Amino acid sequence: MALSAIVSVQAADNSADGSLCGKAVPRTATYLNPKASRDKRVKDLLSRMCWEEKVAQIGGVGGLLGQNSTFDLQDYRKKAQLHNGTISPGSYLNYAEDAVPVLSGLIVASKKEHRLGIPYVHIADAVNGPTLRGTTLFPSTLSMAMSWNLPLYTEVAEVLRDELVACGVNWVLSPEVDVARDPRNGRIGEMYGEDPWMNGEYAAIYISTMQEKDSNGFMKVATTIKHYLYGTSTGGINQASMLGGVNHIYNTLALPYINVMKKVSPASVMPSYSTIDGVPAHSNSYLLQELLRQQFGFDGVVVSDADAISMLYQTHKTAASLNDAGIKSLAAGVQLELAIGFPTAFESLTGNQTVDGVARNVNEAVSRILDLKFKLGLFDKSLEADIKALKSLRSEKHLKVNEKISSESIVLLKNDGILPLDSAKKVAVLGPLAEVINTGTYAAWTNKENGNNTLLDAIKTEFGAENVRHVRGVDIVDTDDEQIDAAVEAAKDAGLAIVALGSIAVGWEDSLVGDRTDGEGNTHASLKLPGRQEELLEAITATGTPAILVLTGGQAFELHNAAQDARAILHGFHGGEETGRALVDIITGRVNPSGKLTLTFPARSEVNPVYYNREQSDWQSAGAIQFPYLKNNYIYPFGHGLSFTTFEFSGARLDKSTYGTKGNVKVTVKISNTGKVDGQEVAQVYFRQKVAPLSLPVKRLVGFSKVLVSAGSSKTVEINIPVQELGYWLDGNYRVDKGTYEFFVGDSSADSSLSSALTAVVA
Amino acid sequence: MALSAIVSVQAADNSADGSLCGKAVPRTATYLNPKASRDKRVKDLLSRMCWEEKVAQIGGVGGLLGQNSTFDLQDYRKKAQLHNGTISPGSYLNYAEDAVPVLSGLIVASKKEHRLGIPYVHIADAVNGPTLRGTTLFPSTLSMAMSWNLPLYTEVAEVLRDELVACGVNWVLSPEVDVARDPRNGRIGEMYGEDPWMNGEYAAIYISTMQEKDSNGFMKVATTIKHYLYGTSTGGINQASMLGGVNHIYNTLALPYINVMKKVSPASVMPSYSTIDGVPAHSNSYLLQELLRQQFGFDGVVVSDADAISMLYQTHKTAASLNDAGIKSLAAGVQLELAIGFPTAFESLTGNQTVDGVARNVNEAVSRILDLKFKLGLFDKSLEADIKALKSLRSEKHLKVNEKISSESIVLLKNDGILPLDSAKKVAVLGPLAEVINTGTYAAWTNKENGNNTLLDAIKTEFGAENVRHVRGVDIVDTDDEQIDAAVEAAKDAGLAIVALGSIAVGWEDSLVGDRTDGEGNTHASLKLPGRQEELLEAITATGTPAILVLTGGQAFELHNAAQDARAILHGFHGGEETGRALVDIITGRVNPSGKLTLTFPARSEVNPVYYNREQSDWQSAGAIQFPYLKNNYIYPFGHGLSFTTFEFSGARLDKSTYGTKGNVKVTVKISNTGKVDGQEVAQVYFRQKVAPLSLPVKRLVGFSKVLVSAGSSKTVEINIPVQELGYWLDGNYRVDKGTYEFFVGDSSADSSLSSALTAVVA
Repeated sequence: MALSAIVSVQAADNSADGSLCGKAVPRTATYLNPKASRDKRVKDLLSRMCWEEKVAQIGGVGGLLGQNSTFDLQDYRKKAQLHNGTISPGSYLNYAEDAVPVLSGLIVASKKEHRLGIPYVHIADAVNGPTLRGTTLFPSTLSMAMSWNLPLYTEVAEVLRDELVACGVNWVLSPEVDVARDPRNGRIGEMYGEDPWMNGEYAAIYISTMQEKDSNGFMKVATTIKHYLYGTSTGGINQASMLGGVNHIYNTLALPYINVMKKVSPASVMPSYSTIDGVPAHSNSYLLQELLRQQFGFDGVVVSDADAISMLYQTHKTAASLNDAGIKSLAAGVQLELAIGFPTAFESLTGNQTVDGVARNVNEAVSRILDLKFKLGLFDKSLEADIKALKSLRSEKHLKVNEKISSESIVLLKNDGILPLDSAKKVAVLGPLAEVINTGTYAAWTNKENGNNTLLDAIKTEFGAENVRHVRGVDIVDTDDEQIDAAVEAAKDAGLAIVALGSIAVGWEDSLVGDRTDGEGNTHASLKLPGRQEELLEAITATGTPAILVLTGGQAFELHNAAQDARAILHGFHGGEETGRALVDIITGRVNPSGKLTLTFPARSEVNPVYYNREQSDWQSAGAIQFPYLKNNYIYPFGHGLSFTTFEFSGARLDKSTYGTKGNVKVTVKISNTGKVDGQEVAQVYFRQKVAPLSLPVKRLVGFSKVLVSAGSSKTVEINIPVQELGYWLDGNYRVDKGTYEFFVGDSSADSSLSSALTAVVA
Repeated sequence: MALSAIVSVQAADNSADGSLCGKAVPRTATYLNPKASRDKRVKDLLSRMCWEEKVAQIGGVGGLLGQNSTFDLQDYRKKAQLHNGTISPGSYLNYAEDAVPVLSGLIVASKKEHRLGIPYVHIADAVNGPTLRGTTLFPSTLSMAMSWNLPLYTEVAEVLRDELVACGVNWVLSPEVDVARDPRNGRIGEMYGEDPWMNGEYAAIYISTMQEKDSNGFMKVATTIKHYLYGTSTGGINQASMLGGVNHIYNTLALPYINVMKKVSPASVMPSYSTIDGVPAHSNSYLLQELLRQQFGFDGVVVSDADAISMLYQTHKTAASLNDAGIKSLAAGVQLELAIGFPTAFESLTGNQTVDGVARNVNEAVSRILDLKFKLGLFDKSLEADIKALKSLRSEKHLKVNEKISSESIVLLKNDGILPLDSAKKVAVLGPLAEVINTGTYAAWTNKENGNNTLLDAIKTEFGAENVRHVRGVDIVDTDDEQIDAAVEAAKDAGLAIVALGSIAVGWEDSLVGDRTDGEGNTHASLKLPGRQEELLEAITATGTPAILVLTGGQAFELHNAAQDARAILHGFHGGEETGRALVDIITGRVNPSGKLTLTFPARSEVNPVYYNREQSDWQSAGAIQFPYLKNNYIYPFGHGLSFTTFEFSGARLDKSTYGTKGNVKVTVKISNTGKVDGQEVAQVYFRQKVAPLSLPVKRLVGFSKVLVSAGSSKTVEINIPVQELGYWLDGNYRVDKGTYEFFVGDSSADSSLSSALTAVVA
């Protein structure tokens, strides 16, 4: 492939600094000197760039490679002429070993061809892993968050990072700290869960691990914390409006950002598609400047979501044209445009050099992008594909970490004692989800080619193919095709049914994409199982044959009907390549489940929001309010998850009764494993402030710790909580009030699972 | 009854101004002089009040009379000692002729007994009429709003006002301009609907009519605009939290207040039970002072909702005690406490005379209450019961107005041509709601005694009792008792079924109160018909017998299943004494229906919010978003309502294409009645601004006009819209932008019902 003359931006005749565009660069230029300070290098380089080069730097080319790593040079050239700040890989179905050399070749060539030698930065998604096959396929973010295991998540982030580095990816569009407050939202599978504080804990680990410096002091992989801000959108819709007063913004939507930025500096922030109090995030200078930069101290790049700038014109109607959208978004503080559609809003800025503020804002944007490129070492290190590193993909260590997180990502919601199975010889595997690897949207995987690691595969391996009868029974969403009778017969015949149901959110290139009811672009008004799946479950449970329900999907389901006739319910959310096996490990008892929900499961679809950390007057708590037919708003609370053993919490106490505002509250609790098998349990600490000027949540998670306790023994867990963590934001000011605080410890957020109040006075 | 020494506030020994409490008042005191200015009278009177008298003035006694106008003097004395600003009547089941003399006697006596002769102000609810029987029982607010008939609503308000005056009521706790944005909210029956602008139009009429001056220049009846602010609470729950940034507050929640206060000054404002952005409305000085008084120019009394101040302590946990709640609420700007529970928060202020700001705030509060009492003429006019006026209750004129509004309050949602009935001789009346007068919570009515004006009564009158067979079929909510088979048989036998279904929100003293699933204190997570009502309907429609579904309840129902097998659907919402007859008038064609929805009916319970004036990126509009199983979010749009004739809109046009910012846009449209009967149609004008810095609604109602068009003829309707009405609020500033505006005219808010865009440029 001839990679010549790829980027050769020609000065427009009318360019004010057109002369610059043709100027040669001396080898002694400061920006080429690795020993010069980053700041000086950025300034020097910026001063040498002509207007068109600058505008090209704040855009990029995405969707580069087609399947089988094919490449359309013509199309690429056309785009890269105008957009050459970033590059993104394209098809998720390419194998790393094929695609990486092509991508690296392109990057190396384009750097050479660029008049100033400015390299691309290679941006990619990274939810379940790199978006190239041949890498380790992890469960998605939501699933992994269910582990409540921060040390293990750190290991996952290390593996992910090392594989990204091997793939030549410099910058990822994660972590996603959106607050999953509406169960109808189709993107929850990509998020950590509903608790803003917890999301910040996970995200800080992800960011610090990814952005670790290599031996040369270069940032390994830059991260993007997103979607700034998102969490309470109208109808649970991805791009919908959000209501946000200052207290809600600080205490809920922005809390993960605030907490993360206290610990670590994400390289970039991505605004959300939503409007916040009527102003689109992508043109919201209050959010992007006043809060993000001045209040939270953010010092990186604000990168747009895909096509989000053009949506100011096309969707939100807050801009009069694509160009107007570009000017407004740039002015509000967006520095880089990610686009699927071309022409882009930012490329149109070439005509706006003299428009008030545009040149200044472009300079600022380019400086921030260049600064990141220098931080990443892109000017100073080899950008060639590292063939040796590529061989480290899917190393034994990586697969081991994946196996562990996959097990801990699964939540046992219900179990009447049927699990673990002890004597089953034959099993009917029913339902349309047994043969699916339901990864979520942003994974390098396709159900087009059957792998050997679906749930069905794993069950066959376990029981022997001859003892397994598989009947789909119904389609995932279609209501026509059905073999419910055959499924019922199979269940009766085997005497045991494993019923795999759910909703899918596979990638756009997957053969099952038409069956998606979950994932970005979807909103599930109803949390019932799609299609006729519930009917299938009813028919099976009606026979009296013991049924184990195995759910998949990045969402809570309505589980108050037939699901409760199942003897056990497992939920795997969006899985990876190990999830099928991990499910079987749990079903057979080889692994004792330890996942805990990071979402509240509503009692019914119509009842939302149901997040546990509500205000005092929400839910049915206030007076005579009644949800017809419901005793509780939830069927499974935040923090819930069963084990094969039983744990007893005892002796919950605080180390003191009075603390200073700079002190630490030490919560101690003894966890006894009173069952017959070893198991992991999560001590969860919630608190509430007794009286505050603001209506604060009824309780808030503020610490947790996962421990392995051997059967028959016990462990004492200590959780330290800085008093400074107990505050809240009022009108933009952080306060930690003197007064009374109550702490609760237990194995879920439900009042019935928690210790009585441990009272502390902050004086 | 001995009404002596009812109010004799004794100075506490430790009162700083205890001496005042015993002091005699000269007859020459300024405040006793009707010719002195109101301001001087207030100041003079205030200067003569001792601390305890002041604190007593900012509270009142409610629930005074038991049923049969009984009265507990002991209890009353105890309370009135500490709370003597206001009085409220008690049981809604008392007849005006019995209760009014007792109440008036009490008021007169207490004025005499008060050291300073300060009269009570008599406060009452007034949703369907005065809360005493023997008055005209109107449909509730929501139902009447469905008339889209402002002149008729003015007549209603006049009747209401005159009956209130006859009952000696000085002050009503209406209008309720809450924005009905969540269909799950149980109080929607009390509201006008989902459109903030329309709510303001209705409320302005209500207020100006009620507050009209009598021949002596005294305000006839003071009004309370409420609940400030309410409309987008979490889960649609009455007391739940609301998210509110400044743009949302100004453009949606506060819009009715802003618009009303441009035209008329309500005597009082009642804060909502909710928190807004975390701060309870009852302690929210931003809302109650900065916005309400400084921005909107409110100059009346802020009166608490019942027990809402104590909720700061008991529910919201923003106050440390009842007393703390009183201090905070007073400081935020609440001037009068309405309480059901005693002791009250404000009475505890007697101990706080020296607490910073309390004395000043109490003086301010008392001044405002006294000012209103002077405005109402309570010091200067006779407070005796007006026996002659009492005889004017339920006058022929009053009943006529009620008949008219009752007809126009009913919406024909669906009709395949079966209505009006032409040849029916026999009819089966089925369902548990045929014998109920479903008024909503705040009406002087009880289903304990059967009236003669239920739907069933009216049908019997129409068809002859011998031709009507009534079977309840199922209970309203209970799922045990059922006679579905008997109902089916009755339907088959008659060959025609009128099926009366719905949810009820009757008063607290009603025998059916246990069946409530609607009204204050209720939230209906599911919009399905309660109990087994849907099952009954299914069984009837399955027989093929033509079924007319008659709905009642202050809510939208989920109408996508069996309801669509009914041949026609009528909805009466919360009715009054004429609603049964009005339904029969429509069913038989004596009246041509003309009601139009002021609520969007969601396609399913789970889909909300669905209000029509959403932002651009809400609903499924943005990209690939999908609600499983749904084509549309709504089944019946805002503005929808059928007639027995057909109308054609044609020639929609604007008078000009360019307007100045002070101009008027004149929208003209021709409405032709192309059917065979005369009918009323509503021309509805919506608009949108093409581009704005804020994401504005996809469309907004800005004018409407209801006209009677004879069969075969046509009328040209002109609607004038001041360009100044086309603006919006950005960060607290009202803007009318120059630019392009699009207008749409039609018979509902659905795109398919509207004219193509009429474009106007504001230059």
